[in-house]
Amino acid sequence: MSIRFGLLGAGRIGKVHARAVSSNSRAQLVAVADAFEQAASDLAGQYGCEVRSIDAIESAADIDAVIICTPTDTHADLIERFARAGKAIFCEKPIDLIIERVEACLKVVDAEAATLMVGFNRRFDPHFMALKSVIERGEIGAVEMVQIVSRDPGAPPVDYIKRSGGIFRDMTIHDFDMARFLLGEAVETVTAHASNLVDKAIGEAGDFDSASIILTTASGRHASISNSRRATYGYDQRIEVHGAKGAVSAENQRPVSIEIATADGYTRPPLHDFFMTRYTEAYANEISAFVDAVESKSLPTPSGLDGMLALALAEAALKSVKEQRAVKISEVTGALATRDVFQGR
Amino acid sequence: MSIRFGLLGAGRIGKVHARAVSSNSRAQLVAVADAFEQAASDLAGQYGCEVRSIDAIESAADIDAVIICTPTDTHADLIERFARAGKAIFCEKPIDLIIERVEACLKVVDAEAATLMVGFNRRFDPHFMALKSVIERGEIGAVEMVQIVSRDPGAPPVDYIKRSGGIFRDMTIHDFDMARFLLGEAVETVTAHASNLVDKAIGEAGDFDSASIILTTASGRHASISNSRRATYGYDQRIEVHGAKGAVSAENQRPVSIEIATADGYTRPPLHDFFMTRYTEAYANEISAFVDAVESKSLPTPSGLDGMLALALAEAALKSVKEQRAVKISEVTGALATRDVFQGR
Amino acid sequence: MSIRFGLLGAGRIGKVHARAVSSNSRAQLVAVADAFEQAASDLAGQYGCEVRSIDAIESAADIDAVIICTPTDTHADLIERFARAGKAIFCEKPIDLIIERVEACLKVVDAEAATLMVGFNRRFDPHFMALKSVIERGEIGAVEMVQIVSRDPGAPPVDYIKRSGGIFRDMTIHDFDMARFLLGEAVETVTAHASNLVDKAIGEAGDFDSASIILTTASGRHASISNSRRATYGYDQRIEVHGAKGAVSAENQRPVSIEIATADGYTRPPLHDFFMTRYTEAYANEISAFVDAVESKSLPTPSGLDGMLALALAEAALKSVKEQRAVKISEVTGALATRDVFQGR
Amino acid sequence: MSIRFGLLGAGRIGKVHARAVSSNSRAQLVAVADAFEQAASDLAGQYGCEVRSIDAIESAADIDAVIICTPTDTHADLIERFARAGKAIFCEKPIDLIIERVEACLKVVDAEAATLMVGFNRRFDPHFMALKSVIERGEIGAVEMVQIVSRDPGAPPVDYIKRSGGIFRDMTIHDFDMARFLLGEAVETVTAHASNLVDKAIGEAGDFDSASIILTTASGRHASISNSRRATYGYDQRIEVHGAKGAVSAENQRPVSIEIATADGYTRPPLHDFFMTRYTEAYANEISAFVDAVESKSLPTPSGLDGMLALALAEAALKSVKEQRAVKISEVTGALATRDVFQGR
Repeated sequence: MSIRFGLLGAGRIGKVHARAVSSNSRAQLVAVADAFEQAASDLAGQYGCEVRSIDAIESAADIDAVIICTPTDTHADLIERFARAGKAIFCEKPIDLIIERVEACLKVVDAEAATLMVGFNRRFDPHFMALKSVIERGEIGAVEMVQIVSRDPGAPPVDYIKRSGGIFRDMTIHDFDMARFLLGEAVETVTAHASNLVDKAIGEAGDFDSASIILTTASGRHASISNSRRATYGYDQRIEVHGAKGAVSAENQRPVSIEIATADGYTRPPLHDFFMTRYTEAYANEISAFVDAVESKSLPTPSGLDGMLALALAEAALKSVKEQRAVKISEVTGALATRDVFQGR
Repeated sequence: MSIRFGLLGAGRIGKVHARAVSSNSRAQLVAVADAFEQAASDLAGQYGCEVRSIDAIESAADIDAVIICTPTDTHADLIERFARAGKAIFCEKPIDLIIERVEACLKVVDAEAATLMVGFNRRFDPHFMALKSVIERGEIGAVEMVQIVSRDPGAPPVDYIKRSGGIFRDMTIHDFDMARFLLGEAVETVTAHASNLVDKAIGEAGDFDSASIILTTASGRHASISNSRRATYGYDQRIEVHGAKGAVSAENQRPVSIEIATADGYTRPPLHDFFMTRYTEAYANEISAFVDAVESKSLPTPSGLDGMLALALAEAALKSVKEQRAVKISEVTGALATRDVFQGR
Repeated sequence: MSIRFGLLGAGRIGKVHARAVSSNSRAQLVAVADAFEQAASDLAGQYGCEVRSIDAIESAADIDAVIICTPTDTHADLIERFARAGKAIFCEKPIDLIIERVEACLKVVDAEAATLMVGFNRRFDPHFMALKSVIERGEIGAVEMVQIVSRDPGAPPVDYIKRSGGIFRDMTIHDFDMARFLLGEAVETVTAHASNLVDKAIGEAGDFDSASIILTTASGRHASISNSRRATYGYDQRIEVHGAKGAVSAENQRPVSIEIATADGYTRPPLHDFFMTRYTEAYANEISAFVDAVESKSLPTPSGLDGMLALALAEAALKSVKEQRAVKISEVTGALATRDVFQGR
Repeated sequence: MSIRFGLLGAGRIGKVHARAVSSNSRAQLVAVADAFEQAASDLAGQYGCEVRSIDAIESAADIDAVIICTPTDTHADLIERFARAGKAIFCEKPIDLIIERVEACLKVVDAEAATLMVGFNRRFDPHFMALKSVIERGEIGAVEMVQIVSRDPGAPPVDYIKRSGGIFRDMTIHDFDMARFLLGEAVETVTAHASNLVDKAIGEAGDFDSASIILTTASGRHASISNSRRATYGYDQRIEVHGAKGAVSAENQRPVSIEIATADGYTRPPLHDFFMTRYTEAYANEISAFVDAVESKSLPTPSGLDGMLALALAEAALKSVKEQRAVKISEVTGALATRDVFQGR
């Protein structure tokens, strides 16, 4: 029997998930809610499902799971609400921009024994999945150095930047999650440098557009992240992991893979120019993994804790930029025995 | 308004087209027919359409177009029948294995002014489309040499081989079409060498499994084709076009693009192992192009004539192997004023 | 003790060999001869050796081996002369443009039991050597299809063309040798198509500038060669060999291997623009292999017979273009029992 | 007229420079000195030059320039001595392991107006030179992020490690120089993390074998360096520079560039396994650049100051690892007005 979905939020990313649900043979899109009536009804029309209010979805007997794609500041409230309503929850990242709010939310999830998955889509990119498998099969030996390059084709509008929580919480958070995913060991310190090279307005809004980050673990593994809000050549997304026995890398994806040779040299077209075309398969695989977890009543990954820990790395990175020093994760997660709280799950 | 489709044949390739139609917002799958009741009803169930007989589809007022995916020996008859019924027709290659039968069929299509498109899916591969665009924009100057490598991961069963019309009509025919598509000038001669290196049973069935072909045009352009029924490294599909000002190539596609570096060197996983995964996007684009043509009442490409001319190249190749000489296309298309017959369209 | 060399011909290729000899610790350049006194004395000055006449080199007790880099029409005479003088001989390709003259010359070499190596430098390119080793180690199984792309950056002057013996004897002859080297089985038929697309003056001189060739062997192996006298992107030299268990390829070499990414895409600089920079290492390795043979008194490869058989393929190719059919090698080598003549060696 | 060289030190790197000098038409190797008589006479025999003592070279009228390849702890003394003797000096890196000693030495060089070049060979690698040219031509706009991956095939013996000054002064120093060379702006801070993952003995000797470093400049440019003393896949040397208008990268060099395709995938052989084969051309170009400077009486690059500043980055990196914070360059160069001292030159 199919998992029946309610979709909260019919915006850009909501549409991506609607398509993923409707093309998944084990999932069914039952209802969509959005503050903008028209957005909800357009999407409902396209996929032959109903428009409902969030309240109606919450109390609906014919909804097993929700996908939360509403504005960030509503995520934590909605997670708590649907956890209490007994629905499985897929929530777009981040759970909240403030780490204490995330922790409070996750306590409710924990208390309700709710199923919560956080939308770090990159873990489900087929190329990154293959890279991860190579590591897990031991082909490169123990992981030593993870290197992530992650650059956007262009900076978002400053209005977006202002609401975004800053580059670390908005953009690097994906890389923090991938670094955690690949290091195979808890991150202990974060060192970050950030600057304003792309757009002065970003700096004026108090944010950065260029960043270099090093994460370290207790055993001495490193992850390096290089971020820029600008890459004229397209959406630059590369990962390389160096280990004791070798290395594995995932190269950039290209919408067309031709090469033109002339007197000027050999030229291949630019990369994808948008994260949605770059990660099309990742979004579909992500929903499929969530359906797996709901069907099998197992804990989905990335979990709420994964969401919180990536946010903690962002916090630590910001602190590191300000204080020009390595910041321990324990400094930002404070006295909370993070691991213990969730260990039971 | 959507183009309403009837699908004739619910086998492997029928399923591919059913998916393409159903995911095309301007198309609608109304009915499916198949000699095996179960195959038809399974597919109908999956896409929420009806099972009908071929007769019912022929006379249906709610069907605008048909897709013919039945066995090859039924293609020409069905094309004629649906041309007379006023339906737009998409037919899988080949129209028939015998060139005279194809010509007779195309005369009916012509007389009925029917819309006919032949399923040479590779023209719609996004990478090959991009390569073609580079040529059309003049970036490599006048085309001089086309080189096609086309190798299957493994040989089909001998039973299939026996019904296939032989390597040139079954496998090389796609390369003949691509060569014609890219040469930009009519092929004048075909020289082919073929041998039996992969599977003795194929030779015993009177066919070849390895072939090298050169096509020439009046102005002296060449196309080279290299075929094998075996490639341990996957479905090998490469095209390179060399021109007066440069060259353009389309490299192989890979399901995962990672690279593993160890003491043994740098290794990337094998290619796609199946034409359906390799050409997924091509199949979708192909149906979309057909819908374009039906909507705009324009002549689709590749046309019935394209289908016939690719078959003529296959005929000529076979004759060349037997007679160990360059064979002129005019030798196999005979006294028929091929071009004139279709010039009116 | 070093092998002591006399160099006959101080032109472009003579200089290449002079450098190779002088940088080889087992070789010593003793004397150089050239019809142009100045050319000889310049080269002698550069490498600290003597200028001598050909006669003096022939009778010199302090010369073990000669390198023949004089004009083509003197090669056969010089080979015979130095074979009789008991010197080891390295001769630039071709031995002669006329196959009967080559055969006569080789009979003298044979009668004198002289050491003769022919300058097919590509066999000594480190990348092609590595490719050959992969085949010999059985990593790709039995060879099935050899594919050679060989394009010059630009056409030579028509004056050169007129003296060259034509594209097959001048340019393709290297590819014929590589095809023979890699096929691992005697070539049985040659089919060639050639045209005039690059420079009309070449056509007016009775030659071609673009060619496609297929070679076949008794067991059904194929080699395909694609030639052009023009490649805007540089000196294009690629080989790919497909076998029963896999394939191996040698990609183009580049003088600089950087890549520039901009909004226009990813660009790598053009290839080498000259055969001498492309094959620098090959020329050095070639002389080293000759020194090996002279030192060990073993038969060098490529031999005089290799030189003659490559020329025979060129002859057959020309005949194939004229007669538009597959030409058997036996047609051009005539009644001569080629193999038997040389079998004793 | 040729520049006449004395070579001090006939060890591994001395041999590399002897070859470079002897194959440079504008240079002449006149004498070689080494504490081991045999080493000196072997090298002298090979290149036809004299064995002399350092004293004799110092006072020789027929020596214009010296190449210092003796043990590190003799470099500064020899530089001072030959600066006073009026010889042009090429010195292998580093000038000394202690920054104060380097500064004192450079003051002598300055006072004597001597010509001093430091052996950072990578600046002369043709691929890195091409990359630098792309930046200088403005093709990627203002530099924003430099990324250097530099990994050795294997760790050196612990005995070497103990004398090496540690990973930052011994290995990363090359990367520090390249980062300085490419950033186009003075480095302001260094943040480094280092650990011991490859060989416990290295850790026991008080050194690290794995390091990640971030350099920043006043305007907010970043350079990231990733080092490991182990790379099973060969000598891994990559540089990528991202700028406002694009990026440029130099990929790894391979001794053979073939690719083998089998059922296991597509495999290319490992990288070079030794810095001397990887940087063969760089060593030759480096000596050529030194000859240029001596001939033209211009200041060579990299200069003594470049040598000192790379060492300062190494000092700062070590301090950063210990103190877990970003270290300013001014902290390690102290009160010395470094720039002013050398500004006159």
